[in-house]
Amino acid sequence: MPRVSQSHLDARRRQILDGALRCFTRRGFHTSSMQDVLTEIGLSAGAVYRYFSGKEEIIQAIAEEMLRDFAARMTAYVEQDDVPAFEEFVRQLPAVSAHVTGNPETAGMLLQVWSEAPRSPGLSAAAKSGFEEIVAVLTKVVVVYQDRGELSRDVAAEDCARVIISVMQGYVLQRAIFRTGEMESFQAAFAALVRTAPPLS
Amino acid sequence: MPRVSQSHLDARRRQILDGALRCFTRRGFHTSSMQDVLTEIGLSAGAVYRYFSGKEEIIQAIAEEMLRDFAARMTAYVEQDDVPAFEEFVRQLPAVSAHVTGNPETAGMLLQVWSEAPRSPGLSAAAKSGFEEIVAVLTKVVVVYQDRGELSRDVAAEDCARVIISVMQGYVLQRAIFRTGEMESFQAAFAALVRTAPPLS
Repeated sequence: MPRVSQSHLDARRRQILDGALRCFTRRGFHTSSMQDVLTEIGLSAGAVYRYFSGKEEIIQAIAEEMLRDFAARMTAYVEQDDVPAFEEFVRQLPAVSAHVTGNPETAGMLLQVWSEAPRSPGLSAAAKSGFEEIVAVLTKVVVVYQDRGELSRDVAAEDCARVIISVMQGYVLQRAIFRTGEMESFQAAFAALVRTAPPLS
Repeated sequence: MPRVSQSHLDARRRQILDGALRCFTRRGFHTSSMQDVLTEIGLSAGAVYRYFSGKEEIIQAIAEEMLRDFAARMTAYVEQDDVPAFEEFVRQLPAVSAHVTGNPETAGMLLQVWSEAPRSPGLSAAAKSGFEEIVAVLTKVVVVYQDRGELSRDVAAEDCARVIISVMQGYVLQRAIFRTGEMESFQAAFAALVRTAPPLS
């Protein structure tokens, strides 16, 4: 049996996930058959089943990647030497989350993941660990702003983090179902709602 | 054929919707068979099919009722002679939406409706008209606060309304999937985030 390099395995896995995402976002997760997915990927069933047991494992991997990517972008944000003002942070959320919120189809994928989660232990674990990771990173962001006097200290940083996430989750939902507009004016409204307290002097 | 009074028809419809909601919230919408629903309601198939063509029409009626109820409570709120301060309004949202957000099961029902909507024209229409009605009512609430100088006029009232709704939608999602805590501390964090501008003098 020929040896297969790690980079070859990684490239195949990438090819599968990219093709499946294209297929799911165009046709929907439920209405895509495994054959539709295979056709889009351009690989045989045998090649794909070597990596994933089926549609559910593929969507789980896509969701994990989406959430991990988002958490990584947030971590990079909070580890900057010079974290921007809170209002600026809120305004940057559309760019940070564009890989999910940029169009109704990818937003719809995340909605699929959420709705399947209560019935799928694997998806539920993936969604939960992604959510908790993002809550943890955003809590650090909120603490930075509380220390700088830009956000109230009267409230638990983790609760603030969950509210900031809820605004994004609600946007994803509105985008996926009601096909509402771009995230920019939406987050601008959130930024305007959040009147930042004057910095500590 | 005996004449049937409107109040009898209304009571039967109520009995069906209440029983189905109990069944769906306990067993989940997907994992409830029509037989499970009938057993919970305590009526024959014939009696139930006189009112609804099946599970989907029942869940649609439940969703319409949930959303209409929420819009009605909001309308009553905005039509008060003496609308409370914005921060107080945010703090009252848990009570106003308790029929949906009060437990993970009813929150899960709404998540079901959202996730089915993209594949069901009936549910999609119900969710969309409910959403638009709530956006319209909340936009009026926001205009009251903008006129009183409690919210910034720099932003479209409708965008603000959508953000306020997104916070509730995100909460419903977190409650349904991650079984997070009561809405009170969550909305208190939202109220703390939203630093209200001083009233116009």
